[in-house]
Amino acid sequence: MGSPAADGAVTAAVLIIGDEILSGRTQDTNLRDIALYLGVHGVDLMEARTVSDVHEEIIAALDALRTRYDYVITTGGIGPTHDDITADAVAAAFGVELYEHPDIIAMMTARWGSEPNAARRRMARVPVGGDLVKNPVQGPPGFTIGNVFVLAGVPQIMRGMLEDVGHRLKGGAVVISRTVRVEGSGEGVIAAPLETVAKAHPAMSLGSYPFYGEGGYGSNLVLRGRDTAELEATVKELIAALDAAGVTTVREVVAA
Amino acid sequence: MGSPAADGAVTAAVLIIGDEILSGRTQDTNLRDIALYLGVHGVDLMEARTVSDVHEEIIAALDALRTRYDYVITTGGIGPTHDDITADAVAAAFGVELYEHPDIIAMMTARWGSEPNAARRRMARVPVGGDLVKNPVQGPPGFTIGNVFVLAGVPQIMRGMLEDVGHRLKGGAVVISRTVRVEGSGEGVIAAPLETVAKAHPAMSLGSYPFYGEGGYGSNLVLRGRDTAELEATVKELIAALDAAGVTTVREVVAA
Repeated sequence: MGSPAADGAVTAAVLIIGDEILSGRTQDTNLRDIALYLGVHGVDLMEARTVSDVHEEIIAALDALRTRYDYVITTGGIGPTHDDITADAVAAAFGVELYEHPDIIAMMTARWGSEPNAARRRMARVPVGGDLVKNPVQGPPGFTIGNVFVLAGVPQIMRGMLEDVGHRLKGGAVVISRTVRVEGSGEGVIAAPLETVAKAHPAMSLGSYPFYGEGGYGSNLVLRGRDTAELEATVKELIAALDAAGVTTVREVVAA
Repeated sequence: MGSPAADGAVTAAVLIIGDEILSGRTQDTNLRDIALYLGVHGVDLMEARTVSDVHEEIIAALDALRTRYDYVITTGGIGPTHDDITADAVAAAFGVELYEHPDIIAMMTARWGSEPNAARRRMARVPVGGDLVKNPVQGPPGFTIGNVFVLAGVPQIMRGMLEDVGHRLKGGAVVISRTVRVEGSGEGVIAAPLETVAKAHPAMSLGSYPFYGEGGYGSNLVLRGRDTAELEATVKELIAALDAAGVTTVREVVAA
């Protein structure tokens, strides 16, 4: 598919940190939530990586991504336990120290009614030069430094923190999409008309996502781009091209 | 967390190929399925990457992963449409050509009752030197070349193909795990006893996975390792250490 991230696009990557994802214990849902959120803000998610809770691995992945994309959003590894090493790795990647942020210590003291213990104090550490990312759900905030946003791994908390990220992003033109659903025809029949229309519109992204199950089979053809008029025209051309190829069980659906 | 992938471990990475994941349109579930499957075969999943349907991006990620880990499993991008470019990228990474595999052409001819059209013939292409990976579900097979397995993106088909992967892997010692569930205590209280026990057992991996919701809050402490006796001993030590720290709402649960 021709990537819609072209000239002037604003790009991002996601770095998921945590052995629980790589062991299969936990099903990640943060990537999709972040992807949808970035889409609304006109930022193209270009790549995602999942790494284990190993200091050097986190630094290597973070450096690879933050030098290549406009933004990096990390999830996971900011709790109080010994395996939560994201803050250390991010500080090391930026070559700065961690310090206990007085606002977080104050929040913790207010919450627990006394000075936080050593484990909880770990969660108050942010890199020198960083800013806080609000946590409207539970527990201490995340933080941001440079072009990196460091969020919690727990999905509810991650989503809450994300709300304090969007207004800090320079937004690109928002990508809009339409979906044409074909029922009862496989990709083998759809491919030729789809490719013809895709070649005629290099600025658009056309993807085919087949489905099959008890309710039948077919494919969702997703058209994405930044120009409303061209998107509209492309949808019409695609439906006409499918029709000319004998594929008539076609309807447009509202994108999920 | 100390990684259980140590001396003699067999390692793997997953490469998820597809704009539909990065746009947030589709929730990936293949990573978790593959992780669990590899775990049963004693193979440690070390890293995962998701890249878009761009030739150079697929090659770069594939080369980074296949030179570093024992195996790479890819998902997605092997259908008949123009955005399905995985086979081309894998062949390019290995510096070989693609050819139409006669067994796949024969399967297609038998299925559709005539010679397959150009779009379907795309799915019959495998790299020179590659082997087929059986598809027990629907459609043409996947393939393998070198240490790379190329599977479909549709979850049902991916899982079916995976069954023809395991017997080709050199297995490591299987990682076993136990889970100790703590209810009503946060990680701030759990962290110190957990770290003490983790330090005493460097060959074990101890992770804390907090939860909270309508049913209450707490954390699942997951212990993983390859030695049954040490795992048993570590579970007991952890429960004793939690008890000594005043955390008594602890029970062992059967891992999901």
